Order: sequence, then C-alpha cells, then structure tokens
Amino acid sequence: MPVTISQRGRLITLEGGEGAGKSTLLRGLEAHLRGHGVDLVVTREPGGTAVGEAVRALVLDAANNELCAESELLLMFASRAQLVRQVIEPALAAGRWVLCDRFTDASYAYQGGGRGQPMERIAELERWAAEGLKPDVTLLLDLPVGDGRARAAGRGEIDRIEVEGDAFFERVRDTYRARAAAEPARFRLLDATASKDDVLAQAIAGVEALLAGAPS
Amino acid sequence: MPVTISQRGRLITLEGGEGAGKSTLLRGLEAHLRGHGVDLVVTREPGGTAVGEAVRALVLDAANNELCAESELLLMFASRAQLVRQVIEPALAAGRWVLCDRFTDASYAYQGGGRGQPMERIAELERWAAEGLKPDVTLLLDLPVGDGRARAAGRGEIDRIEVEGDAFFERVRDTYRARAAAEPARFRLLDATASKDDVLAQAIAGVEALLAGAPS
Repeated sequence: MPVTISQRGRLITLEGGEGAGKSTLLRGLEAHLRGHGVDLVVTREPGGTAVGEAVRALVLDAANNELCAESELLLMFASRAQLVRQVIEPALAAGRWVLCDRFTDASYAYQGGGRGQPMERIAELERWAAEGLKPDVTLLLDLPVGDGRARAAGRGEIDRIEVEGDAFFERVRDTYRARAAAEPARFRLLDATASKDDVLAQAIAGVEALLAGAPS
Repeated sequence: MPVTISQRGRLITLEGGEGAGKSTLLRGLEAHLRGHGVDLVVTREPGGTAVGEAVRALVLDAANNELCAESELLLMFASRAQLVRQVIEPALAAGRWVLCDRFTDASYAYQGGGRGQPMERIAELERWAAEGLKPDVTLLLDLPVGDGRARAAGRGEIDRIEVEGDAFFERVRDTYRARAAAEPARFRLLDATASKDDVLAQAIAGVEALLAGAPS
C-alpha cells in the first residue's frame, strides 16, 4: 500500500520598513488564514525562541549604540538559525503554515543595504545558518520613507534601528524593492500608502494561490 | 622630521578546558605583566562588552538547552566581532597589551571539535567577523579531561556547556592540542596538572620573549 506523505506547510513572510503597517497587517492576515482553516504558527524575527527574544532585546535596545554592523548581522542570524530549526522547519514538516514577521530578506535590506554588510556574506549565512530556507510568499509593504517615519514617530519610543537617518531607510527600501524585482514569483509588492483594509485585501490576494493549493 | 610610530600592543590569549585553572592563571599573569610595567587590558570571551556579556549569559544559561550549534557559533562570533572592534583593536593600536580569557581558538575547539561545526565555516567567520586577528601568544592549559572535570565539579553550579559528556570534552581537548601542534610559534602548551605556582611559572616563561621585546 502506498504511504501517504502529508503535504509540507507553507512559509509566508512579511517585510517592510518602519511604520509600514506590518503589525496591523499581520493580525488581519492571521485572522484570514485561520478563518480558512489553516493550522498556523505566527512568529517573528528577531525573536520567536528564547534566544531569539533575548537577541531582539539586545539589538533593539537604544543603549547598545556601540553595536557594530558585523555583530548585529551575526546576532540576527543567531536568532534565525534557532528559529528555523526549533520553530519553522518542524512546523512546515508537520504540514502547518508559518506566518513570520520579517525573515532573511530583512537582513539583506537592513544589514546589507542599510549597514553596508556585503550581500555575499549574508548569502553565505543564509545557506548554512538558515538552511537556505526560502519563503513561499513574501509580502513586502512598500512605502515612501518619509511616510513610514512619520507614522513610526507617532508611536512614541524609538529603538536602536529607528534612530538611523533617512539615507539609511532609503537604502533599506531600495534593497527590498530590488529583491522584489529580482524574485517576482515569490514577492508581492503591497502599496502600503493605501488604507488598512485595502492593504489587507492586497495581502489576501497575494496568498490566494497558496490557499487554493492548500489541503482543506 | 620623521614621525615616531608608537609600537602596537600585544595580544595574549588563555585557552583550556573546564577546570584547567584559567582563572587562577589569569590573575597571576595579570599581576606579573603589570609588575613589569605593561599597560594591560584584561578581558574575556564571550563577554567584555555589553553585547558580549549578554551573549555570555545566554550561552552559559543551562535553561537554554535547545540552543542549536549554529546559533551558538554565531553568538560566539557576535560577541567576538564586538570585542575585537570595541576593545581589543583600539587597545593594541594605542600600544596597550590585551590579556583575553579565551578567543577564536575556543570556537574551533568547542563549536568545531565539540559541536561538529565545520572548521572552514569557523575560519570564514574568523576572517571577517574577527578581522583575522591572531594572538601574539596563546597559552593553552592542557589537562586530561577527567582531571579537569573533577576540578570543575568541585566548583558547584554547572553551566550549559559543562553538562556535556566526556566525549565532547575529549574532542575539545584534541582540537586544542592539534591547533597547538599546527602553530608552535604562537602556542605555549602548559601542563595544567602541575601546581598553581608551576603553571604560572610556565606561563611567565611563555611570554618572556614578548616582554623582552616590549617597550619599557
């Protein structure tokens, strides 16, 4: 008798700059997917594990203003290596879906584009530390830097990355957009200047094909 | 008029397994070097900076028993990248000496030999994250694994690395010894089964040539 191999789950990642509306979209998309019966794990980067959350606190703490770009990159991948092995891969292998707030594209955008770490260095870390894991769909919330920063400023306290200047965030955005252009099959570029409802509708459209192919 | 270039400082590292007597030797060697007028910075790995000490707490916390080998390796180099740039390189450039309790050899021994991370992966991280920085002298406290573990057990609480079995620590020791054999000009292999005074005397003999060449 043939053995039934259960279908591997799907990995959906959310990317975008400051104030692009990731948190709001995450909640809306989570509700949509669960509403369609998806067995979903929601997680985030850096974070999602004990070591990841400790790394998150370190990296975002505005008091760590001496943190060098190399150390920041290594910390991000330390969090990612653990998240992939402890959370994401086991979930996918069990047929569950994973919705992750930021993933490796963020390292290319922030540590590569923003901080100037060589892209090949990041690609090498992606290969062994993140097991070369690629999302099935990456939703990129795209927004002019000025708009995003104005929104983020309204939220109050500013973290260690948010203190960077506009030029930094322009490089982050440019890198995200370049990656989206280079991998159109994986990326969905969402216009984050639209209303929250409209952004959610764009995201839902972006995962429609995945849902259509999902096990019921 | 010729410009006087002040002499670059020296980097001395201490390596060795559990219970080899590193802490005692560190204090004795520190006193000896300061007694000879050396302007000395004493630091440690993981640690020595805000991010490094946070990494140390994470890596040694026995509660983090899920930490994967890749994440551990990345955390060690995150600490090292910061320590090299923030503490060691500025000190050496200013002509100061640095005495560091563990350095990159420990990653080869523990994450490479102990955990099985590929040596070439560690070498690649050494090149860019640690700027390829090599100690002038590395003092390796060598001790049979059983002896060291018996001493370490007498100290009380056991950290996340000390819970490993003898086979792990045999691989760590073998890797240290192989590195010492491969780089005899840099390494001083100290017999850590000797008395504390004798081990200190061995270490002092091991840095004698450096001191003889040091600025007065």
